[in-house]
Amino acid sequence: MRYSWSWSELTDDVQAEGPTIAEKDALLKRENGVSEQSPMRLRMEKFIKEHQKQIVAALEEVDGQKFKIDTWQRPEGGGGITCVIQDGNVFEKGGVNTSVVYGKLPRAAIQKMRANHKALDPDVDSLEFFAAGLSMVLHPSNPMAPTVHLNYRYFETADDKGNTNAWWFGGGCDLTPCYLFDEDAIHFHKTIKAACDKHDPGYYPRFKKWCDQYFNNTHRGETRGVGGIFFDDLDETEKDQEQLFAFAQDCLSAFLPSYIPIINRRKNMPFTEQEKIWQQIRRGRYVEFNLVHDRGTSFGLNTPGSRVESILMSLPLTARWQYMHFPEKGTREERLLEVLKKPKEWV
Amino acid sequence: MRYSWSWSELTDDVQAEGPTIAEKDALLKRENGVSEQSPMRLRMEKFIKEHQKQIVAALEEVDGQKFKIDTWQRPEGGGGITCVIQDGNVFEKGGVNTSVVYGKLPRAAIQKMRANHKALDPDVDSLEFFAAGLSMVLHPSNPMAPTVHLNYRYFETADDKGNTNAWWFGGGCDLTPCYLFDEDAIHFHKTIKAACDKHDPGYYPRFKKWCDQYFNNTHRGETRGVGGIFFDDLDETEKDQEQLFAFAQDCLSAFLPSYIPIINRRKNMPFTEQEKIWQQIRRGRYVEFNLVHDRGTSFGLNTPGSRVESILMSLPLTARWQYMHFPEKGTREERLLEVLKKPKEWV
Repeated sequence: MRYSWSWSELTDDVQAEGPTIAEKDALLKRENGVSEQSPMRLRMEKFIKEHQKQIVAALEEVDGQKFKIDTWQRPEGGGGITCVIQDGNVFEKGGVNTSVVYGKLPRAAIQKMRANHKALDPDVDSLEFFAAGLSMVLHPSNPMAPTVHLNYRYFETADDKGNTNAWWFGGGCDLTPCYLFDEDAIHFHKTIKAACDKHDPGYYPRFKKWCDQYFNNTHRGETRGVGGIFFDDLDETEKDQEQLFAFAQDCLSAFLPSYIPIINRRKNMPFTEQEKIWQQIRRGRYVEFNLVHDRGTSFGLNTPGSRVESILMSLPLTARWQYMHFPEKGTREERLLEVLKKPKEWV
Repeated sequence: MRYSWSWSELTDDVQAEGPTIAEKDALLKRENGVSEQSPMRLRMEKFIKEHQKQIVAALEEVDGQKFKIDTWQRPEGGGGITCVIQDGNVFEKGGVNTSVVYGKLPRAAIQKMRANHKALDPDVDSLEFFAAGLSMVLHPSNPMAPTVHLNYRYFETADDKGNTNAWWFGGGCDLTPCYLFDEDAIHFHKTIKAACDKHDPGYYPRFKKWCDQYFNNTHRGETRGVGGIFFDDLDETEKDQEQLFAFAQDCLSAFLPSYIPIINRRKNMPFTEQEKIWQQIRRGRYVEFNLVHDRGTSFGLNTPGSRVESILMSLPLTARWQYMHFPEKGTREERLLEVLKKPKEWV
């Protein structure tokens, strides 16, 4: 399912005959807790929730201000934890969210997914599914400090006996500076590449390219930022489940070391009013990507009943559109555009 | 063609055998000027250009600052005049644009248009077309002063002998306040209704409803503003060409009397910092509509080679997205949302 973050779009009227996977999982957790023997669903949920806490704690240390925590439950099973910072000392706006969803996939959605997952049974009217993910966007106030986006997710469907039918991992992480410091882009990519290389030497080049292709404001001929990695639909045709879970874990664990040194270097740098305006114009481009091109966002917004505030949490606090604004030759602003028009290899 | 403003998307490689309609029109204008006997294409072009001048002059008087004028030519014939004001005394950002385009419609576009225009020949690979329109968006700085949008356009296709094949008018005008003054909405709607009523008592109710339906942030369950009118595809099945041209003229002529009294009443009203923030949040909703739902914008942005700066001129200079911002009970901000959730009859 090539959408970056919109479980909310999926139908939630679960009317299974036997116990649903949500009910089974609740029972399993109560009786045995979560261990390496538990189903991947419970292990992924545990893993993202632990990391959400770690990440929020580390970001609070960077900012000096606390995140506000909203939790929400879904009557069908699952729910979410939304951690938000707004008007912080370092972060103008940021969110670190986990979400766990049990629901039912309608036939049309199954048909679409079969393009990438042949294990899905084409002959059923609906399938139970499970989705768990951590998603994050941070927009710092200082124009020298880059915006960062991250999302790692696990998806699973079950047959009518509650057995796993298809499953896959997706996700990625990418950096969007307004002022480009090569050392930041290099550090970010190197850290991610190291996490990828532990699992497969082909992963970083393949997922780096995918990232540049996906996060692309095609109407401007510019990538959104300096990239990172992006992947989706990684299932048993790629590697076995344990190996892919280990890969997703290493990617997510690489986030703090990839970003914290950068934000700490940039968060208190001096800047001019003109540089702040340039940041606001770049934020406008971020909005353009998310509202025009991001498949998850537009799909979510066009689906009745979705949680709009969670979907649009990715937007910056403030943005700007200035008619015919083109940076002058030889400026740092122009250099950024050159790199966005022709993505670089950073490692 | 149900797109509000994006001629630029249409293919421009005209390779006709005989003289194109662009060439014919250029000759006609040189030899005879433009009179009531001229083709509708030339009359519409003359009309919108005259009104653009009038409107810009009236807005410059309101603002005290001059518009910047860009003109651009299309090698295939036609071109545009873009009049922009940015960081004015009254208008934070605004544009009043005319555009005249001669081009060629590909087969796929013809097929789509046939849904509303049976006169289009389904058996040709391409058709010459002509499009002329005036489009305008004004975003005032003062949060008490409403944003206004207007667009009136004429579209025509020609067979391979250069004779008119199908034609239609489209357009509308709508008001988007951040703080609702009932008297403004009533005045705006009354003025537009009077222009409509001169032509058909059914027009105002029909086009008012169409406007509320079109300018709708469905993902928020809110209309973009307090509406006005919107119509499209008005052709010979509606009324004859002269009558519809007279209607479009009266609608466009109603703009200054509908908006100038409002902007003059509101442009210097006192406001608080909190009210400015609410305006910025409402501007965010304007961006959401234009980037997520407006068919013309998204079609234009997804079409290679379109003039992005003209398409996105409709966006405000600045906007804001604040997580979970809901106005308190009994406030003016809450009253606005109530009206947007349930459009009112103003006349």
